[in-house]
Amino acid sequence: MDPDVAFAIWSGERARRVESVLERLLPPNAPSGDRLREAMRYAVLGGGKRVRALLAYAGGEVASADPGVVDSAAAAVELMHAYSLVHDDLPCMDDDILRRGNPTCHVAFGEAIALLAGDALQSLAFETLAAGTPEPAAQVALLARASGACGMAGGQAIDLASAGKELALSELERMHSLKTGALIRAAIRLGAACGRALTAGESDALDRYSSAVGIGYQVVDDVLDVEGTAQSLGKTAGKDAMQLKPTYVSLTGLAAARERVDTLRVQARAALCAFGPAARRLLELSDWIADRKY
Amino acid sequence: MDPDVAFAIWSGERARRVESVLERLLPPNAPSGDRLREAMRYAVLGGGKRVRALLAYAGGEVASADPGVVDSAAAAVELMHAYSLVHDDLPCMDDDILRRGNPTCHVAFGEAIALLAGDALQSLAFETLAAGTPEPAAQVALLARASGACGMAGGQAIDLASAGKELALSELERMHSLKTGALIRAAIRLGAACGRALTAGESDALDRYSSAVGIGYQVVDDVLDVEGTAQSLGKTAGKDAMQLKPTYVSLTGLAAARERVDTLRVQARAALCAFGPAARRLLELSDWIADRKY
Repeated sequence: MDPDVAFAIWSGERARRVESVLERLLPPNAPSGDRLREAMRYAVLGGGKRVRALLAYAGGEVASADPGVVDSAAAAVELMHAYSLVHDDLPCMDDDILRRGNPTCHVAFGEAIALLAGDALQSLAFETLAAGTPEPAAQVALLARASGACGMAGGQAIDLASAGKELALSELERMHSLKTGALIRAAIRLGAACGRALTAGESDALDRYSSAVGIGYQVVDDVLDVEGTAQSLGKTAGKDAMQLKPTYVSLTGLAAARERVDTLRVQARAALCAFGPAARRLLELSDWIADRKY
Repeated sequence: MDPDVAFAIWSGERARRVESVLERLLPPNAPSGDRLREAMRYAVLGGGKRVRALLAYAGGEVASADPGVVDSAAAAVELMHAYSLVHDDLPCMDDDILRRGNPTCHVAFGEAIALLAGDALQSLAFETLAAGTPEPAAQVALLARASGACGMAGGQAIDLASAGKELALSELERMHSLKTGALIRAAIRLGAACGRALTAGESDALDRYSSAVGIGYQVVDDVLDVEGTAQSLGKTAGKDAMQLKPTYVSLTGLAAARERVDTLRVQARAALCAFGPAARRLLELSDWIADRKY
């Protein structure tokens, strides 16, 4: 089979898997007028690429984990990601009105319900992970660190503080390695933790892969923010420049940003040598992330 | 020793215990300019009665748990409570400027940082619980349910929807059993889970106690909102009436609300018979909650 087709089939199947887990966690038959649950469903099930879930399943494959064992970790990282988008879009943060081609959660449900929906989605992420994972203490701690002040929330705070400022490239990468990278790294780690124990060398290799993909994902985002349109992205384009936010493109120019994407892709590929064919999906995912257009 | 004095010594010692755990989790020596960590410290270490932590330690005593084993659960419920206060005070929620006698977190640090500080405190609560508890899967799930859409956040959403509306007393109690009660019940449960396994009868008795205290805490809050002053409460008084929120007092009048407090106190006491002297601190805490003036 054409490898591209095989990857498309695999990723479609895994995306449907996590979608059905999320559907079960957020059923549509909430008591009518339960705006909080409606908002949670809206935020989580409104499309999205499910990249983090796919990375969790692919991380599981290098450790020979059955996808059924990875489901909870995959759903948990998607819930965590969805909460972060809802809160990021709020007026006191990025004040954005468009997400995945739809009105953002606070536009649709009001700010207060959006705030609570994000809060409750974070709780649900931990509940889901704790209930369905082989090593709950380690995995909850890993996800909590990735999302808290040493991870996603910490990166957001640096992002806020950096608006209108000059950042060195190293500072920008640090910010993104927290804001976007931490949850991406956690997704891969959580997936891998659902299988056999990795050797120290394998574990290091997985970390190198995860770091490269985590940063690469954000550099591509910055490139797309310049090149894309609201229609292709499903969110407001050109936002970074409008908000005077430093990006890879604003710091290094478009050509150098694209080169950085390629370098990171090579680093990600190189790290995977340790795993042989078991890393096939991780490899395809890092290529897909580097090449994505939305 | 006078029992009141013994209780004061016990609760002072336990409050200092949890304070020192929280101090360790949120050290003052963050890199300068780390506004997120400053805001987290501000929100958590700005005083507070530590009722939830005391309930966790007292819950531990009925199961013969060593206080050292309860520390993480006690700190986790205080972190969760602190996050909920920061988010509740935000302009899109209660829009409050005063908390524990100090400017609220968003007044001191801005809305965006306050939002992130709340988010990161929730993550830290789960990290702390997972890292230091004997049964992490069950305990994380319990805390997550208590704080999510079936607990605290769900109660907040009902509270939002009820402003300006008539509620039946049963609806009001349901709202409060989620908004305030769920975390109080979780605190007691998490503490007890740090010790020996309880019998089914003991477990039921603890639930009855916890429900009575959870509702009682809120009825007292409603009474104090009418009777108290900003100085005695450390927060804005008369807020409920101003916001046209239904309360026990607005629904039943002050005398009936006070009577309800006494009935709940009796129910709490009755539930504790199952435990004998091991429930001494729980009993003292329910009395203290019923009699509190701030």
